[in-house]
Amino acid sequence: MKLNINGQIIDKHAVWWDEEINKVKLIDQTKIPFVVEILTCNTYRDTADAIKNMNIRGAPAIGAAAAYGFVQAIWEFWGDKDYESKLKYAYKTLLAARPTAIDLKNGLDYIQSFFPIDPENALKKAKRLADEIAAEGKKIGQIGKELIHDEMNILTHCHTGALALVDFGSAIAPIIAAWEDGKQFHVYVDETRPRIQGRMTAWELYQYKINHTVICDSVSGYLMSKGKIDMVILGADRVVQNGDIANKIGTYNIAVLAKHHQVPFYTAFPKSTYDPRTKSGKDIKIETRSNEEITHVIGYSSEEKRLTRIELYGSGSKFYNPAFDVTPADLITGYITPYGILTSSQELKTFFQPRTE
Amino acid sequence: MKLNINGQIIDKHAVWWDEEINKVKLIDQTKIPFVVEILTCNTYRDTADAIKNMNIRGAPAIGAAAAYGFVQAIWEFWGDKDYESKLKYAYKTLLAARPTAIDLKNGLDYIQSFFPIDPENALKKAKRLADEIAAEGKKIGQIGKELIHDEMNILTHCHTGALALVDFGSAIAPIIAAWEDGKQFHVYVDETRPRIQGRMTAWELYQYKINHTVICDSVSGYLMSKGKIDMVILGADRVVQNGDIANKIGTYNIAVLAKHHQVPFYTAFPKSTYDPRTKSGKDIKIETRSNEEITHVIGYSSEEKRLTRIELYGSGSKFYNPAFDVTPADLITGYITPYGILTSSQELKTFFQPRTE
Repeated sequence: MKLNINGQIIDKHAVWWDEEINKVKLIDQTKIPFVVEILTCNTYRDTADAIKNMNIRGAPAIGAAAAYGFVQAIWEFWGDKDYESKLKYAYKTLLAARPTAIDLKNGLDYIQSFFPIDPENALKKAKRLADEIAAEGKKIGQIGKELIHDEMNILTHCHTGALALVDFGSAIAPIIAAWEDGKQFHVYVDETRPRIQGRMTAWELYQYKINHTVICDSVSGYLMSKGKIDMVILGADRVVQNGDIANKIGTYNIAVLAKHHQVPFYTAFPKSTYDPRTKSGKDIKIETRSNEEITHVIGYSSEEKRLTRIELYGSGSKFYNPAFDVTPADLITGYITPYGILTSSQELKTFFQPRTE
Repeated sequence: MKLNINGQIIDKHAVWWDEEINKVKLIDQTKIPFVVEILTCNTYRDTADAIKNMNIRGAPAIGAAAAYGFVQAIWEFWGDKDYESKLKYAYKTLLAARPTAIDLKNGLDYIQSFFPIDPENALKKAKRLADEIAAEGKKIGQIGKELIHDEMNILTHCHTGALALVDFGSAIAPIIAAWEDGKQFHVYVDETRPRIQGRMTAWELYQYKINHTVICDSVSGYLMSKGKIDMVILGADRVVQNGDIANKIGTYNIAVLAKHHQVPFYTAFPKSTYDPRTKSGKDIKIETRSNEEITHVIGYSSEEKRLTRIELYGSGSKFYNPAFDVTPADLITGYITPYGILTSSQELKTFFQPRTE
């Protein structure tokens, strides 16, 4: 995607390898929409931290970042006498950065499947992975755009744009592709507390001048009851054997509401999000994140003229912050994938073959 | 309720008439939980502004504030040659402060029903109204507490505590009464974006040391799917003839989710919230509030050591901020009222007679 960084237009993925300095770089997603900044990860530990701290987020982008991070470890320890144990430790560290997105593990396992591999070739594989994910985003857009028609109102949740999927986006890709075809429609963007990823979605839609309105997460049912939502499209962080999905907390609420109002509910995702080894949504471990994501928010203070972090709550309360929830297959109308719009777990199984050489 | 204001314990309603200075005073709800401050309203216009700006909020408390505000106008214009037209204007101004809560209109109409009335006697009526609402809160607590049992997990939304209902609270009243009876249970408190009234609920529950956990609004379905919500209790801003209710945005989402998971869904409210003149939820006008409630939040900056307002969004987006939604009667298990736990619109009609002398 093209980004304007301090007046300079760069055309980059969400995460990439800087050839000149042999470091991983990524667009810092914690500062958007206020500042567009590039973060440099000097070691695989920095990359793991960037995943953990959500400087990079979105399941497919995390997968690419993990693959690059793993290459950094190979680069760092190549020729070392404890190479194998150090690499094993790096694998574990990167894997532990975010537990829910299967893409992370898929990214690491993809690199590992070529072992033994030298740093230069490992890097080629990581780049190919990132390029393939980006190409899948483009494909998802072309396939999914057929669902979108003039005058539709579409609801989306969380952030599934180019920055979340290396490039092009997952759930946003069909929206952008349909817009570029000249279709006229409108998107409701869920705020997506606690991390307010809706502001990133709004920011990406604004880059394309796509009609959109931001709403709080609790407004979806009211809009559906008024007939103002024609379709839900959102992403996925993990899609398992029986077709259940894990996705950003709040997805399940929307799915139940969509069913109640007979609103079609679509999830869009690339290959790396599919997890054929997990049977059902019940088997997915849901990540509980820090209370501070609820109690503190970052935004721009016009008085201080800078980004400021404030506390929203008083003392004496407990908080619970599950980052994802599970939506069962029977609430899902269709899966928008690079292979078409699939509608059953059998189709998912047929089309999603493990990534190989 | 007892409040600790700068080390001084005061036992006050959410809004009251200060005899010494003949002004309306209220606990400023926009600063809780960070600061507990009393706001003085010198004229009825100040009181209308306090309602509009949500310095006082919660449907029944708004009703009492409106009655006191109307008394201020009577006090101000008594003996004036344009008394009637000025009073009519004051009525309109106060009524326009918040459109959804019927309590506001009920509070004004209650005072008006005694016209012509002198200032001293009007004040007596307003005080009686406030006392009666508080007494109803106490009754709601005693009646509703029977629904609460040991080890229950209760979900509540928005703020329905003492500050929202003059005293004792509506949905919170049964929770406090059951806790004071020694029952051991746990309350999930919805954050309630955009205004984050959950922090007031959390603050009030903390005053009683009641076990509670704050969650984002999108977590309710996930908890229900895990069997972790045994009951929903929340308030109402308007209850109409057919038993539909208007309440804080997000209530409808919870109601649909509760139905889907067969979780009992209760709404608690006093007499002033009942609106026998409106037939169905479809006839309720829903207030759309300022975008700034979504785009800006106030919290405590530990760096600045003061309350700070920050902006959460970038430019280029539209926002939509409906303050309430409508929940149809068929999603409501029961109405917790001062007259018992009612279960039908016929029962509501029978028990809720218009307030008269």
